[in-house]
Amino acid sequence: MDDIQQTITLMKDNTLLKIIGQRIVNIRKQKNISQEKLAELSDLHRTYISDVENGKRNLTISVLYRICCGLNISLSHLLKGIKK
Amino acid sequence: MDDIQQTITLMKDNTLLKIIGQRIVNIRKQKNISQEKLAELSDLHRTYISDVENGKRNLTISVLYRICCGLNISLSHLLKGIKK
Repeated sequence: MDDIQQTITLMKDNTLLKIIGQRIVNIRKQKNISQEKLAELSDLHRTYISDVENGKRNLTISVLYRICCGLNISLSHLLKGIKK
Repeated sequence: MDDIQQTITLMKDNTLLKIIGQRIVNIRKQKNISQEKLAELSDLHRTYISDVENGKRNLTISVLYRICCGLNISLSHLLKGIKK
């Protein structure tokens, strides 16, 4: 898939949000943190974390930042390798 | 400033949004792109771009992604070095 095609794909169908959600799940599990614990660390509701992990929330950068703080990673680390 | 202090600072007073807005301005100017052109490339309104650049919009990750596409950079590149 070329770059333009990949960009178009990421902008459709919440693909970007699903990729980010999946990365949050993976990092959370690697760190052995429950959804409840991440919710507490990020000052968000557990169901909100669940929605984000399922790519169902078009979250703001501020909320994503809080989740990254909860996971103890940088925004840049979470988003690394997602093509422009 | 230690890491915890920096995290607290970034979460207050739209500091995170202002940092991101300033980075967008800098990269846009480096690339010699006008606000109008970036608006067109990102499929957003020029006044919206202006608000983002001034840290006045708590923008979603999808919108930030569109702006990054307009600037031809990755999300990770834009957000690099912002502490967790």
